[in-house]
Amino acid sequence: MTLIQSFTEGQEIVGFYMLKSAIFKQTNATPPKQYFDMILSDTSGEITSKFWEATTADKETFFAPMLVKVRGLVQMYRDKPQFKINQIRPATDEDGYNIADFVRSAPVQPVDLLYTIKQAVVSIDDDELQLIVNHCIEKVGDKLMHYPAAKSMHHAFYAGLSYHMVRMLELAEFICVQRPFLNRNLLIAGIVLHDIAKTEEMNAELGIVSDYSFLGKMIGHISLASNWITEAAVLNGMDVNSEKIVLLQHLILSHHNLGEWGSPVQPQIPEAVALHLIDTLDAKLQAAEDAVGTMLASEQWSPPVRSLENKAFYKASKE
Amino acid sequence: MTLIQSFTEGQEIVGFYMLKSAIFKQTNATPPKQYFDMILSDTSGEITSKFWEATTADKETFFAPMLVKVRGLVQMYRDKPQFKINQIRPATDEDGYNIADFVRSAPVQPVDLLYTIKQAVVSIDDDELQLIVNHCIEKVGDKLMHYPAAKSMHHAFYAGLSYHMVRMLELAEFICVQRPFLNRNLLIAGIVLHDIAKTEEMNAELGIVSDYSFLGKMIGHISLASNWITEAAVLNGMDVNSEKIVLLQHLILSHHNLGEWGSPVQPQIPEAVALHLIDTLDAKLQAAEDAVGTMLASEQWSPPVRSLENKAFYKASKE
Amino acid sequence: MTLIQSFTEGQEIVGFYMLKSAIFKQTNATPPKQYFDMILSDTSGEITSKFWEATTADKETFFAPMLVKVRGLVQMYRDKPQFKINQIRPATDEDGYNIADFVRSAPVQPVDLLYTIKQAVVSIDDDELQLIVNHCIEKVGDKLMHYPAAKSMHHAFYAGLSYHMVRMLELAEFICVQRPFLNRNLLIAGIVLHDIAKTEEMNAELGIVSDYSFLGKMIGHISLASNWITEAAVLNGMDVNSEKIVLLQHLILSHHNLGEWGSPVQPQIPEAVALHLIDTLDAKLQAAEDAVGTMLASEQWSPPVRSLENKAFYKASKE
Amino acid sequence: MTLIQSFTEGQEIVGFYMLKSAIFKQTNATPPKQYFDMILSDTSGEITSKFWEATTADKETFFAPMLVKVRGLVQMYRDKPQFKINQIRPATDEDGYNIADFVRSAPVQPVDLLYTIKQAVVSIDDDELQLIVNHCIEKVGDKLMHYPAAKSMHHAFYAGLSYHMVRMLELAEFICVQRPFLNRNLLIAGIVLHDIAKTEEMNAELGIVSDYSFLGKMIGHISLASNWITEAAVLNGMDVNSEKIVLLQHLILSHHNLGEWGSPVQPQIPEAVALHLIDTLDAKLQAAEDAVGTMLASEQWSPPVRSLENKAFYKASKE
Amino acid sequence: MTLIQSFTEGQEIVGFYMLKSAIFKQTNATPPKQYFDMILSDTSGEITSKFWEATTADKETFFAPMLVKVRGLVQMYRDKPQFKINQIRPATDEDGYNIADFVRSAPVQPVDLLYTIKQAVVSIDDDELQLIVNHCIEKVGDKLMHYPAAKSMHHAFYAGLSYHMVRMLELAEFICVQRPFLNRNLLIAGIVLHDIAKTEEMNAELGIVSDYSFLGKMIGHISLASNWITEAAVLNGMDVNSEKIVLLQHLILSHHNLGEWGSPVQPQIPEAVALHLIDTLDAKLQAAEDAVGTMLASEQWSPPVRSLENKAFYKASKE
Amino acid sequence: MTLIQSFTEGQEIVGFYMLKSAIFKQTNATPPKQYFDMILSDTSGEITSKFWEATTADKETFFAPMLVKVRGLVQMYRDKPQFKINQIRPATDEDGYNIADFVRSAPVQPVDLLYTIKQAVVSIDDDELQLIVNHCIEKVGDKLMHYPAAKSMHHAFYAGLSYHMVRMLELAEFICVQRPFLNRNLLIAGIVLHDIAKTEEMNAELGIVSDYSFLGKMIGHISLASNWITEAAVLNGMDVNSEKIVLLQHLILSHHNLGEWGSPVQPQIPEAVALHLIDTLDAKLQAAEDAVGTMLASEQWSPPVRSLENKAFYKASKE
Repeated sequence: MTLIQSFTEGQEIVGFYMLKSAIFKQTNATPPKQYFDMILSDTSGEITSKFWEATTADKETFFAPMLVKVRGLVQMYRDKPQFKINQIRPATDEDGYNIADFVRSAPVQPVDLLYTIKQAVVSIDDDELQLIVNHCIEKVGDKLMHYPAAKSMHHAFYAGLSYHMVRMLELAEFICVQRPFLNRNLLIAGIVLHDIAKTEEMNAELGIVSDYSFLGKMIGHISLASNWITEAAVLNGMDVNSEKIVLLQHLILSHHNLGEWGSPVQPQIPEAVALHLIDTLDAKLQAAEDAVGTMLASEQWSPPVRSLENKAFYKASKE
Repeated sequence: MTLIQSFTEGQEIVGFYMLKSAIFKQTNATPPKQYFDMILSDTSGEITSKFWEATTADKETFFAPMLVKVRGLVQMYRDKPQFKINQIRPATDEDGYNIADFVRSAPVQPVDLLYTIKQAVVSIDDDELQLIVNHCIEKVGDKLMHYPAAKSMHHAFYAGLSYHMVRMLELAEFICVQRPFLNRNLLIAGIVLHDIAKTEEMNAELGIVSDYSFLGKMIGHISLASNWITEAAVLNGMDVNSEKIVLLQHLILSHHNLGEWGSPVQPQIPEAVALHLIDTLDAKLQAAEDAVGTMLASEQWSPPVRSLENKAFYKASKE
Repeated sequence: MTLIQSFTEGQEIVGFYMLKSAIFKQTNATPPKQYFDMILSDTSGEITSKFWEATTADKETFFAPMLVKVRGLVQMYRDKPQFKINQIRPATDEDGYNIADFVRSAPVQPVDLLYTIKQAVVSIDDDELQLIVNHCIEKVGDKLMHYPAAKSMHHAFYAGLSYHMVRMLELAEFICVQRPFLNRNLLIAGIVLHDIAKTEEMNAELGIVSDYSFLGKMIGHISLASNWITEAAVLNGMDVNSEKIVLLQHLILSHHNLGEWGSPVQPQIPEAVALHLIDTLDAKLQAAEDAVGTMLASEQWSPPVRSLENKAFYKASKE
Repeated sequence: MTLIQSFTEGQEIVGFYMLKSAIFKQTNATPPKQYFDMILSDTSGEITSKFWEATTADKETFFAPMLVKVRGLVQMYRDKPQFKINQIRPATDEDGYNIADFVRSAPVQPVDLLYTIKQAVVSIDDDELQLIVNHCIEKVGDKLMHYPAAKSMHHAFYAGLSYHMVRMLELAEFICVQRPFLNRNLLIAGIVLHDIAKTEEMNAELGIVSDYSFLGKMIGHISLASNWITEAAVLNGMDVNSEKIVLLQHLILSHHNLGEWGSPVQPQIPEAVALHLIDTLDAKLQAAEDAVGTMLASEQWSPPVRSLENKAFYKASKE
Repeated sequence: MTLIQSFTEGQEIVGFYMLKSAIFKQTNATPPKQYFDMILSDTSGEITSKFWEATTADKETFFAPMLVKVRGLVQMYRDKPQFKINQIRPATDEDGYNIADFVRSAPVQPVDLLYTIKQAVVSIDDDELQLIVNHCIEKVGDKLMHYPAAKSMHHAFYAGLSYHMVRMLELAEFICVQRPFLNRNLLIAGIVLHDIAKTEEMNAELGIVSDYSFLGKMIGHISLASNWITEAAVLNGMDVNSEKIVLLQHLILSHHNLGEWGSPVQPQIPEAVALHLIDTLDAKLQAAEDAVGTMLASEQWSPPVRSLENKAFYKASKE
Repeated sequence: MTLIQSFTEGQEIVGFYMLKSAIFKQTNATPPKQYFDMILSDTSGEITSKFWEATTADKETFFAPMLVKVRGLVQMYRDKPQFKINQIRPATDEDGYNIADFVRSAPVQPVDLLYTIKQAVVSIDDDELQLIVNHCIEKVGDKLMHYPAAKSMHHAFYAGLSYHMVRMLELAEFICVQRPFLNRNLLIAGIVLHDIAKTEEMNAELGIVSDYSFLGKMIGHISLASNWITEAAVLNGMDVNSEKIVLLQHLILSHHNLGEWGSPVQPQIPEAVALHLIDTLDAKLQAAEDAVGTMLASEQWSPPVRSLENKAFYKASKE
């Protein structure tokens, strides 16, 4: 299978790719002509595609995300590669494909990510905190096996949410050694829970977020997680006003740091500062890595990266 | 008893007043001399006071808020009246005073405010919403009988919180007639709950807030109320993800309108817009009424009012 | 006549509709083909429309706003209904239509709105203020019978400006009862004049604003109204520096509350605070009501509403 | 007479100085002792002064601004010179002083400034504009002979307002030569009127602003000037909607450039841009010149200058 | 040759014009058709143009900026003139054209601008400052003969950078006479150097900026000029910490006034304030002059001008 | 020696302490009495102190920072401990003290910090980058042995600058392992140079910053470091426009991330993002650690921390 990143102008392509977006349009011709504006993706990147011969039946057939088999031609349009689809059909079970081969994923297996997260929870040296964290993990079910961490800002790939958690846990362990005054139990619990309600905030399939859910728009992942902690505490007969539960909720509520970024309170304990900073560092470095990592070899500047002050990124020459 | 608002320069005063603030200081003299910087208040206003003859024993005696009997002299200092205390003692039960005669209070009796609020709750035509609201009212206990709505921004007086609720309920009834498409049940429930957790957010006695509580700083009244709704729902076996409970939490979470004002989500249903606007209108008009209502007769401009763009207010001549 | 709100895919339509917008375009075909991008509207809503067979003669015939008779087909385009016009002609007097049946209008008759406004003016218990207000009303002529209050932000419909005034007058009467310390004369005068110069600021026909006028861009409705008050006072030999005239100008100048919203001074009397808050409450609640009121039955979320923090609105299920 | 700028530590001083500020205070001693916190000034600068022996009678005698004769001693306090007053009395007519010798003034005689301004008005080649400008100049009376342009931001000295106008007129003439497309009549009229209503916005004596007036707070100098133009036009039977009158009002209304700086509309003709920029350039350069010009010879850094991003200014060594 | 500003609908045109922009596109037709979206310009303005018959060979032939000979037809599209190109070829040496006849240029000859700049440098009465300035001028080479001052904000034309310098030098001479306390040497040096590194920050040909350079994005013209001053000082054995060199760097670093506008430090000497204000005044007045100067005779309002608060400009009637 | 953190009310103290601040004042008494407002500090914290018996000779004797021997009494003032100095003299060489015993210092020996930094420089696998970094380190001399990283924001203690560098180097090594695509040479060089010019930006002794220097105010540490890199490159005959030198300057210039925080350009390579984030994380966590680490045992809330959204910090109970 030819990786999208290596497509070259004039090349004829036959193969399986992920259909990441499919919008049915019509031209301004008279009578207007129907076609599909599509994005195909694989593990190496994505490419804008046009399926000019789309029929009304096709309109009921192709919805993103879905694995498809295509035949077509790589063209250049405004100095950017574009794929002209001549034939397209949904992949079927008989095609014997492995979905993971076609979607951009965390570089670690989901099962290993989840194992690491659960080991971290086990290491929390406080029964009540551990119980609360486990309540939330169970509530989420297997969504931690595949949810991305965001629609496009950072870790927007299969199992990106768990991968983000694991990287943050690694950083936290390192920093707890640098600064032993930090309460490790609280910080570990906070890292696991800080974004866990994103699994209810967004609708996602195959690592691709389609939109925000009703709960996401009305309450948001920050307040949802706070409510879940209350729920866990009430169901287990804990004192919701105990210092440790209040501090855990404080970590969740304050982890976006500022009101205009969605946090109703600001960090007022060192662990809340640490959680916010570790989160920011991992999310932004990942966004930078993604920006330069998904550029074609021929390019020097990435598109603008929204979470990094909307700046384009430069790929330095290898030395 | 002479009302503070009518104190005149050179007047000798004997009477009972509320001690609203008491800070023990020392002069720069050698040796430094101890004295008390105090604020006395009654229903008509307040006055800066100095007790120059304070002893170390006095330091252990006088704490705000407390009712005291004083004897002293009204002086002018930088064009403002100041009270020089010659004698001071705590009031005792034998003095037979009624506390309500000495603190600035809502113009309606607390018992009547609470009655009005409870009638509004009874009128909510939805059993689950009513149950949730009652859970929160019971949780708060008799604090609704005396809590102010804020430290200084607005309704900063005895039973100010309930008074604010009642005025908002009146406005809501009027607006629900103007605009029948609004969901009255949701709006009434939202008004009663929107600031109810201020009773846990701040420490207050006799209508005077001393400071923010641990819960107030770590979680804040907005997220506290959201947690209480979750608690009520879990304890009563309701579905926390049902539309009406989610919308009620949305009203509470969004009622400050913007992230930088403390709301983690912004209003996305008309009732949330209505709650925010009714809250703002009542709070700001009260702040304006207080600003001109507590000025001395001789003044034309109030001090700057923080919640009203920090502007001074003008008292127009009566026509 | 079929209401636009009830158009369904595949339906053939013949009827009269308001032509709200008409832009002559050409396709990228070779040679480029001319067509009309139109918006048709009625009292229930509006629909994007295409007239592919437009001729150069048509270009000189169709200008918005204008009532037209059309024949055509309802199609779906990107999941939204679109109307394909096969035939179109301007309505003529012989068609015997009533314009009010085709434009979105205030739910109260303009003549009744104007009557209510004039009653309010009569009730102003101050001859000079009454004279000034009447000068401005006469200056405006019959524009109060049909002007909208804005291009799109709120009350953007036939007689929306008067309707906004009347709703504000109702709220003001209620609040003057809640808070008798307010100067009712000043507040009523301020409400009638606060937006009255919008009739000179914008060009509008049939409740639809086409653009801002020369006076609107150079001076704006706030300063125009201030100038009109000066004009009225000078022509009637009043003292332009008298307290009441200055306070009336202050109400007009400050009613947008902040400099960045167009007010050169900020509210410094309670009536100015009240005017600003009543204006905001009515405008924003109307925007929210419009957002959910003009959605198709099949939709749950409105488009983003600019005046409400650019948020989409949710239409709750009826209970 | 010894100039304040040349006072040195330990020096005994006798002479006449302007009393620029006088606040009656009392110490924390028991019993508290009364004294005067004063600022003395002359043409070279100002000095903080203390009059420890103040009596109650003195309190009724000394009000700023007033010329006084003092005897006292220059001391150092926190590394800054301070003047200890031993004797003080108001200057009397018998003292035969010339007030202009004691107040900081524009470097050009007021009569010459006014002459220059009137010449500029005469040169306006448009009778109506000239009439309007003259109406406003006459309205202001002789305040142009002595008013400062601001309380402290810039040109805060005797006749500072006229001096600011004249400097701006000079710059305008130069720029109209550089860029002949500008409408000189409009620009000259705009410069003369842009700040003219500051004479009603602020209360000032001897070039020293004491506070903002009722008109200043309620309407502000920008809208006042707009109203005056309307008044002049109405009284002289001109068309208030004629292009030139509207553009003149536009220049006045927009000269602060942004809403948050007090302008209800933004510049939309080149002359309005020019007026704003010439105003800014002259005001800010004057603030910079004042900052370094009033420093003591021994200092290298000025106090922070509020209108220049609150930065301290550096006095470079002479080369 | 017909000037673009005087093109009228239906006119047939043959002549030489500057190709300012050329984007190769394809229509949505099936199969998609290739065409060129072009902008042609001359000294009087520019016009959107379409070349529908573009071939793949053309794609390799036409790159902006380039002088071309065209034949075509003026059409109207959405009420704006558009040029339909029937034939197009690059101009050749044999055509015997003078490039300056086709590009919008400063109204003064580049050679005269450079002469004026060099005279100003010669007049700097300080050998070290003069040496530094000359080092930078030599570094830049002949780019001062043709570089614009910006991509589109202001002085975006041939030799616009030098023209901007010269106008600023004129203003500086005038202001140094008004305010003799200013250090003229420093100010002249600062004006010449403040934007000189724009020649490295942007890539430009024939007065048209195509994009920002690698150095421009990574360092920017402000820090580049600071580095060049260091380079000049080090190479000439000067003390980089001497007051005058530090102050010169301060002028360059602070000339955008605020951090959010790109200046790492804010003005703290009067000459830095002057440089910033003169720069702003010249740039903004030029933007206003360009806005009204390039409008067609039939128009009253310009497009929004980004550097002038994004406002449209009004062209007043000639009187 | 009694540590300041363990001072208790009423305790008599004799010992050596650091005089961190000394302001000579006078009381309002008549005649005014001179005294010293001082701050004494040691490794455990600091205490406000008063020396009431100060003489004019003392004024010439005591300047911060200086080691002094004091005798006095611990008192309480407004619920905070204050030290009343009865006797004070400068420490002398005969006292045989070790300065490091009295100043708050990095928890690692300066010599070890410098060793670690130099090892990191040696590990830079690029001769030119190494040469540049070494040029800057040599320029700074032994200031890296004692300079703090800031006046009060973070690492405001003896050798705080080097300590901050070392902690950042540790984090960078960890992150380069997590994300091997980062250019380690560039990142290490950037960390060592990012704040190195703070040694010229601020004046400091014994780890205490007294004020900003002339160079600091005029150029700032960010542009100073950029200039030093240019200087190093020019002196060593390197190409200042080579990619690696430009990128190194980019790292320095962009490390405050935003223009309003002092960076003239924003990060546009991943290493610049990493440098900014590592810097922020280390600085803010240190500020949080300092806030809770220097609180008295009896307190639960720290004073507001300016660099952490001005929030007070809570010291959780040990579990």
